[in-house]
Amino acid sequence: MSLPVEERLRALEDRAAIAELIAQYGPAVDRGDADAVRALWSDDGEYGFDDTVLDAEGIHSLVDLETHRDLMRRGCAHIISAPTIVLGGDAAVAITHSAVLAGTDRGWEPARVSANRWELVRTAQGWKVNRRLNRLLDGSAVARNLLAPGGLNPRTD
Amino acid sequence: MSLPVEERLRALEDRAAIAELIAQYGPAVDRGDADAVRALWSDDGEYGFDDTVLDAEGIHSLVDLETHRDLMRRGCAHIISAPTIVLGGDAAVAITHSAVLAGTDRGWEPARVSANRWELVRTAQGWKVNRRLNRLLDGSAVARNLLAPGGLNPRTD
Amino acid sequence: MSLPVEERLRALEDRAAIAELIAQYGPAVDRGDADAVRALWSDDGEYGFDDTVLDAEGIHSLVDLETHRDLMRRGCAHIISAPTIVLGGDAAVAITHSAVLAGTDRGWEPARVSANRWELVRTAQGWKVNRRLNRLLDGSAVARNLLAPGGLNPRTD
Repeated sequence: MSLPVEERLRALEDRAAIAELIAQYGPAVDRGDADAVRALWSDDGEYGFDDTVLDAEGIHSLVDLETHRDLMRRGCAHIISAPTIVLGGDAAVAITHSAVLAGTDRGWEPARVSANRWELVRTAQGWKVNRRLNRLLDGSAVARNLLAPGGLNPRTD
Repeated sequence: MSLPVEERLRALEDRAAIAELIAQYGPAVDRGDADAVRALWSDDGEYGFDDTVLDAEGIHSLVDLETHRDLMRRGCAHIISAPTIVLGGDAAVAITHSAVLAGTDRGWEPARVSANRWELVRTAQGWKVNRRLNRLLDGSAVARNLLAPGGLNPRTD
Repeated sequence: MSLPVEERLRALEDRAAIAELIAQYGPAVDRGDADAVRALWSDDGEYGFDDTVLDAEGIHSLVDLETHRDLMRRGCAHIISAPTIVLGGDAAVAITHSAVLAGTDRGWEPARVSANRWELVRTAQGWKVNRRLNRLLDGSAVARNLLAPGGLNPRTD
């Protein structure tokens, strides 16, 4: 290892901060905490899932969507897998799976199982999500392709 | 970054040690290893789930509970999500989801899906769980509220 | 802490690199990327699951197995839990659970739930998997026993 200590520490801190940011998502939506969800994204942040694209305002009201309220009534866990992260200076891409386990009459069921691409940026307030893309793993190529980290090209693909 | 190297290393090591501690829980209970489960907690440790509160002795015999023996016979995976961690010197709080996938006649099913709050303390033997609270995500407010990291106030809420 | 900074950094980097390596597995198989799957293993790597043992060549064609092609058609998520890791110089052992959530007519179901033992080696190309063992958590002792980190004895047990 020939990198200076400062760079090695910075890389470790970046990975830890990004993993921490992503780990905050599930608990925040599952307790219905609009401000905490919003705070994960940058001001120009975007969240695209299914046919929906939300901007920062939409992300703030994500937990008020009727579909989300219904999940919370049933009881739900938005479980995000441990991320694989590609660092690129002040930008990063992380790939995860997400599984929403939702309550049923007799237990829980996987209500959504998705591929996630997280495009992250370093801001004055630390690492934030600039764009998250989420597609159901239903056999479609679009969801499978989302699982490739690809380049660090936020918002350009 | 203006923090000294020592403090930055310590924070990274604390996060890594706490993540490691929590990651040991599932494999320990799923293989029925009473000593390994007990060793995760401090001597005055507590584990509260459903209407049950176990002290260190109770935690040591957790894997001998008939409900747990039944899960092991069916085959089970106590999967804990990657934690979000708030460090506070010699104390910390981590929030996770847990999902118990248990064998059925034709595969596996989510038998328990819960919110988890882990209150941790730094001891002479490293980070240990001082209290873990676990509530089923069945739509109840008590489980949802457990997902907020809140303050670093072990045993006082 | 009396260890020198270099050793502390190295231990943190080893943990981060191993967690990153393991986190790459699920996305790689779920997008059907044979080269990415192969690149996780060392040249003398092995992957043993059920009654099958694959060498590096077999690992490279893992995603072409008819069973895997079928999972991809249905839509699948190979979710790996956050690892517990025992470092031992240039070798390491990590334990995880894995759950394969696969598409059905009406959602997703856990198609495989397994115990995983990852034996890792430091190579000139960074940390690689030398051997992964995967056994279904169906109540059998062999799967439960795989969840014990045990010693750092790759290929000898």
